[in-house]
Amino acid sequence: MRTLRELGERWVLRYVARRLEGLPGALLPPGDDAADMLFEGRLVLSSDMMLESTDIPKGMGFRDVGYKAVTAATSDAAAKGAKPLAYLISLALPPETTEEEFKELWRGFEDAVKLYGGRLAGGDTNMGGEIIIDVSCIASSENPVSRAGAKPGDLLAVTGMFGAQAAGLHALLTENRGRNAETVVKRFLRPVARVKEGAALTRSNAVSASMDSSDGLSETLYSLAEASRVGFLVEKPPVDEAAREYAEENGLNLFDLVFNGGEEYELVVTVKPSMLEEAVEAVEKVGGRLEVIGRATEDIETVKAIWEGKVVKVPRRGYQHFTSRSASNK
Amino acid sequence: MRTLRELGERWVLRYVARRLEGLPGALLPPGDDAADMLFEGRLVLSSDMMLESTDIPKGMGFRDVGYKAVTAATSDAAAKGAKPLAYLISLALPPETTEEEFKELWRGFEDAVKLYGGRLAGGDTNMGGEIIIDVSCIASSENPVSRAGAKPGDLLAVTGMFGAQAAGLHALLTENRGRNAETVVKRFLRPVARVKEGAALTRSNAVSASMDSSDGLSETLYSLAEASRVGFLVEKPPVDEAAREYAEENGLNLFDLVFNGGEEYELVVTVKPSMLEEAVEAVEKVGGRLEVIGRATEDIETVKAIWEGKVVKVPRRGYQHFTSRSASNK
Repeated sequence: MRTLRELGERWVLRYVARRLEGLPGALLPPGDDAADMLFEGRLVLSSDMMLESTDIPKGMGFRDVGYKAVTAATSDAAAKGAKPLAYLISLALPPETTEEEFKELWRGFEDAVKLYGGRLAGGDTNMGGEIIIDVSCIASSENPVSRAGAKPGDLLAVTGMFGAQAAGLHALLTENRGRNAETVVKRFLRPVARVKEGAALTRSNAVSASMDSSDGLSETLYSLAEASRVGFLVEKPPVDEAAREYAEENGLNLFDLVFNGGEEYELVVTVKPSMLEEAVEAVEKVGGRLEVIGRATEDIETVKAIWEGKVVKVPRRGYQHFTSRSASNK
Repeated sequence: MRTLRELGERWVLRYVARRLEGLPGALLPPGDDAADMLFEGRLVLSSDMMLESTDIPKGMGFRDVGYKAVTAATSDAAAKGAKPLAYLISLALPPETTEEEFKELWRGFEDAVKLYGGRLAGGDTNMGGEIIIDVSCIASSENPVSRAGAKPGDLLAVTGMFGAQAAGLHALLTENRGRNAETVVKRFLRPVARVKEGAALTRSNAVSASMDSSDGLSETLYSLAEASRVGFLVEKPPVDEAAREYAEENGLNLFDLVFNGGEEYELVVTVKPSMLEEAVEAVEKVGGRLEVIGRATEDIETVKAIWEGKVVKVPRRGYQHFTSRSASNK
């Protein structure tokens, strides 16, 4: 199997150029210095960098890595109700990467891009010491909702349950083959950015604040609380059933999985109480779910939860880059 | 001096959020999940990743690194006649990076963004083993010119001279303090993306193909030749005077500096012969220069130059990632 070092940059450039797609109204051919497109409206721009050393556990295949890198950048756009138009992907790859690994990575990009409805417009491929993938998502939203609009009394809602991704990471790293392992590993490898749900929610006008939860539920709630100058009480923690069973089987702390796991890519939103029905209907109409899990409070920047019948303070312990704790944690 | 590990991710996020700027018509506050802007017209999208191991020589300060990362992404847009609107910057930084280094890096970003006229809209900061900076440039052009339109007989022209950047890299690496060293080092550290020139050229309608030259003049000419199905004869190689003197003083191969140096960020364009005057005037009007250095030929994908009175074949020897030669070369 040939490596990228053997294949050389020109092979890589040609391979990539053949896989790029022209954007609407483009004048430039794929693989030119830049991509172009006609557009009128409101752009939403996000980017997300994935690093082998912190984000890619052993046992994760290149196709899943590619899929997830695109999903992470998309999730930020989805939280603003935006639909992806175009992606730019910059790569650093070790020269020992094989042809097949490289092609699998691109298959993963294409899986995600197809799922979310944008196009792979451009990229930059480099040699590096570790795998690094930076994805920029150029998207469009009529009505992006910030993190800053939550009011005390607004309902707190999520588009899915939490904890399965962190359980899946545990199962991958420990090579657990138990009853629920397969389920949670799949959830870790193939999370779904909530593009349809985000668009439906912002269109419904029912949402006062919105954020994606890739850094973990607790970090997301604290960030929302900080931006909106509110607090939160999580009355019904969004516990994923597979995560609960996996935690029981393997003696893991379920609270930690749910609040500090991360990588769920669910939307965490606040809903105006009078418009809950519209919000739920809008999401269900596009095939999603919206679960009310609590409410915004006046207790500024304080996040509490009801857990096993007791009100507990949720510690802020999301993924922190640059600190030694998180470096070993992820 | 505190390091990023000590300062933590939240400090980094706050520092970055304070430096981000809202885009035209934005609804989202800086530092939200994504940036938004109103736009109508033709977007031009480019990205460029800079890696410490291949692109950042010892002796280059963080401010220059930041400046150059933005310049590289801008240069691709400039070659399509595009004016930058917004930048997304994704970073991987070693946790040992100091507060002052981090701030210098941002000053460098700001130097360049101010020079080129866009805004720093968003970013993603991560911990990594080496410095990696990926810059996406969201720009606008009415009439982007591809690499593919050159016809035999078109004039070959450039917006500046070549070789000083490679000489500057040599001076940096050898700690050369000679007479021309300061000049060429400055050219290496602070190259200028030709945004004004690119816009003027594409507006003039005189240009049939356009490309930026960051991978070196020979690689650029071969890429243009490949895309346009032409060849090139470089009758007057664009030799930078400081590069010539530096090469003489230090026994370097001037041909190699000029054709294979790289990082010039000049535009290499082909001009319809009947419209040369318009093209030169358009560029001079915005304070730039356009020098005719040769012409496109029917000798497909062949690049020749007149050097010291003889016609020589220009070897294709631009910067190739993934090959061991280039890894040691840059």
